[in-house]
Amino acid sequence: MYLMHDRIYMDYNATTPLEPEVIQAITEALQEAWGNPSSNYIAGAKAKAIINQSRENVARMVGGKAEDIIFTSGGTEANNLVLHTAVEHFRRNCRAAEEGEGHHNGCTGLPHIITSNVEHDSVKLVAEHLQRDGNADVTYVPVSKTTARVEVEDIIAAVRPNTCLISIMLANNETGVIMPIQEICQRIKSLNKQHRRLRILLHTDAAQALGKSRVDACELGVDYLTIVGHKFYAPRIGALYVNGPQTETPLYPMLFGGGQERNFRPGLSTAAELVTSNLSDYESQMRRTKLYLEERLRAAFKDRIHFNSHYPGSDILPNTCNVSISGPTLQGWRVLSNCRRLLASVGAACHSDSGNRPSHILLSCGVPSEVAANALRLSVGRGTTKADVDAVVEDLRETVRLLEEMN
Amino acid sequence: MYLMHDRIYMDYNATTPLEPEVIQAITEALQEAWGNPSSNYIAGAKAKAIINQSRENVARMVGGKAEDIIFTSGGTEANNLVLHTAVEHFRRNCRAAEEGEGHHNGCTGLPHIITSNVEHDSVKLVAEHLQRDGNADVTYVPVSKTTARVEVEDIIAAVRPNTCLISIMLANNETGVIMPIQEICQRIKSLNKQHRRLRILLHTDAAQALGKSRVDACELGVDYLTIVGHKFYAPRIGALYVNGPQTETPLYPMLFGGGQERNFRPGLSTAAELVTSNLSDYESQMRRTKLYLEERLRAAFKDRIHFNSHYPGSDILPNTCNVSISGPTLQGWRVLSNCRRLLASVGAACHSDSGNRPSHILLSCGVPSEVAANALRLSVGRGTTKADVDAVVEDLRETVRLLEEMN
Repeated sequence: MYLMHDRIYMDYNATTPLEPEVIQAITEALQEAWGNPSSNYIAGAKAKAIINQSRENVARMVGGKAEDIIFTSGGTEANNLVLHTAVEHFRRNCRAAEEGEGHHNGCTGLPHIITSNVEHDSVKLVAEHLQRDGNADVTYVPVSKTTARVEVEDIIAAVRPNTCLISIMLANNETGVIMPIQEICQRIKSLNKQHRRLRILLHTDAAQALGKSRVDACELGVDYLTIVGHKFYAPRIGALYVNGPQTETPLYPMLFGGGQERNFRPGLSTAAELVTSNLSDYESQMRRTKLYLEERLRAAFKDRIHFNSHYPGSDILPNTCNVSISGPTLQGWRVLSNCRRLLASVGAACHSDSGNRPSHILLSCGVPSEVAANALRLSVGRGTTKADVDAVVEDLRETVRLLEEMN
Repeated sequence: MYLMHDRIYMDYNATTPLEPEVIQAITEALQEAWGNPSSNYIAGAKAKAIINQSRENVARMVGGKAEDIIFTSGGTEANNLVLHTAVEHFRRNCRAAEEGEGHHNGCTGLPHIITSNVEHDSVKLVAEHLQRDGNADVTYVPVSKTTARVEVEDIIAAVRPNTCLISIMLANNETGVIMPIQEICQRIKSLNKQHRRLRILLHTDAAQALGKSRVDACELGVDYLTIVGHKFYAPRIGALYVNGPQTETPLYPMLFGGGQERNFRPGLSTAAELVTSNLSDYESQMRRTKLYLEERLRAAFKDRIHFNSHYPGSDILPNTCNVSISGPTLQGWRVLSNCRRLLASVGAACHSDSGNRPSHILLSCGVPSEVAANALRLSVGRGTTKADVDAVVEDLRETVRLLEEMN
């Protein structure tokens, strides 16, 4: 990585490098498959074949069919598309109901969306925008301050007759906590069956889980699942899994016209194949590294260490270690900016302009404010070694000594 | 190009290959600048620096400032964004007017958009969607059947009190005809000054003109200008020039959250630099090649040749030769599918599924139906040689002979 020399990157939840074979696939596609996939001649056909193969490979990674994959410019577009679709679907259904067709039930007032209070901006800001413009009601179900998960009963309790969508992330980007998506889907599906009403659509943003934990859209039972390339060693594009787009599950486009496919997709495809083939190796390697990291941190800092990614009864991503070292001068940003080798972040990179306030995600998970202020999100990758861990812990020890001496 | 061996590509208006230095720039960025540009550490900084440089280079190509460039996933997103913004701006202004602020004039009824009847789908389908959903009125000003241009007086005549946007392409993708954008902007700007009303916004989709003709957004006088990478030897991403986004010119996002920048941009940047430095060479080379192509076609087919890209008084892109060879068995699709070497298309690639009907663009330009049915769009590129032209004309001659013998 650029200018990294002796630096050690532990911010794989923010973004991953690209695997060399992924770069290779992109470069080859740029050289050989630049034709317009909509063109009739052979160059277009080549581009089209590559895209279809990409769709297959991405589908296989999430347990879907090729036709369930909609490529997008990134996770942001995918998440926006889901919320837009749910609201549009509700609206059309209400219009149809007024004209005597479709379900009347729930067709009063605004569409209602249920989400959590720890979602990524690409869900949170869309929900806020819909609410502000008077186009939807939104309930932000708080995560439990004990488990850091959104609890199934809380979701069920939030359901209203006009609820059109439940959008909950599969794993949180700061704590690594895995949300009970399968249970939520099971409960909502039986609700959907009981009532003669517009069905509640189910969405999970799997950005953080893919490439780290097994993700199977069918097993989860979701209608939509967001895929983000640059979290699993693929380029910065994305895709949306839709369970039977426009047949089983509604999908209303936001952008009209053209819509040709783009040439980063072979990169996404190769990265997806790698995940499909090697997930359990990746997972166990990252888990071993993370456990070693936690063990070394405990040994180095003893009872001054607090893990913000340990919650009773909750499963955590294998690579995520969110940790605070207690001390009045050990705010996360201060520690990180004084580290010689460690590259990490204090929370989701998107919020890096929100300065030095403690993460609202950690506060929502019940982490006390003074602990949250010192949080470091260390997220390891496929290539992180025990030697990297040793060096990082040594670096942190040095930095803490320095900051405490300076005081 | 893939499997092209002895084939000759003359469909540069559909898509261009990537210049080797563009592929190089992308590959380097993928390897070295994969950091999250929003992250604080050095890898993020490198990614950010590359993106800022890309913005500069793209801006320079269209005579704008770096801050005027909004990167998009492609021309489709850029065009959608403009129409969305114009409608949203009108709506907000009306709301403000009702509350006693802003201009009352024009704030009755729906926002009104003026466009032409030969636009790309990424404008046309958005306009149709807005109209269908009752969110806007649209006037499709027909191009003149003599000049194939949209005429300034026709645009002015279409203006209504509630007109919020005029969106006209800079050059047509099938005929190569260059539209009088500068004159339209001048006339509308003086209209904007005369009336105390919501200003009419001005947009041009410059997809086909960039890299072929001089494009200067300030000289043209537009508020928005669409940039499409894969038409000027760059990757399949795009950008929107906005004259002073959110200060001078409104811009309402369609997607919320995240919005990090993506790593194809160094490719767009390098391609833009090439255009800025070499445009006049590219232009004169392509013009020479096209003139030679037209000369050879005339010599080969005599009075059986009809140029659908020659219109009295209209300027044409230097690379575009739209031509029909008369004969009852010489439909464009039939000729192309029998050519041994020529790779070209009968019209815009996006419409390739519309089968063998003559191009509605050519019909709109006054080309008789039996001539339009035989149309071949030959568009040459930077690297097209006289030898390529000779081979293509020979190929066409052979194909025509064959098709007429078979009859």
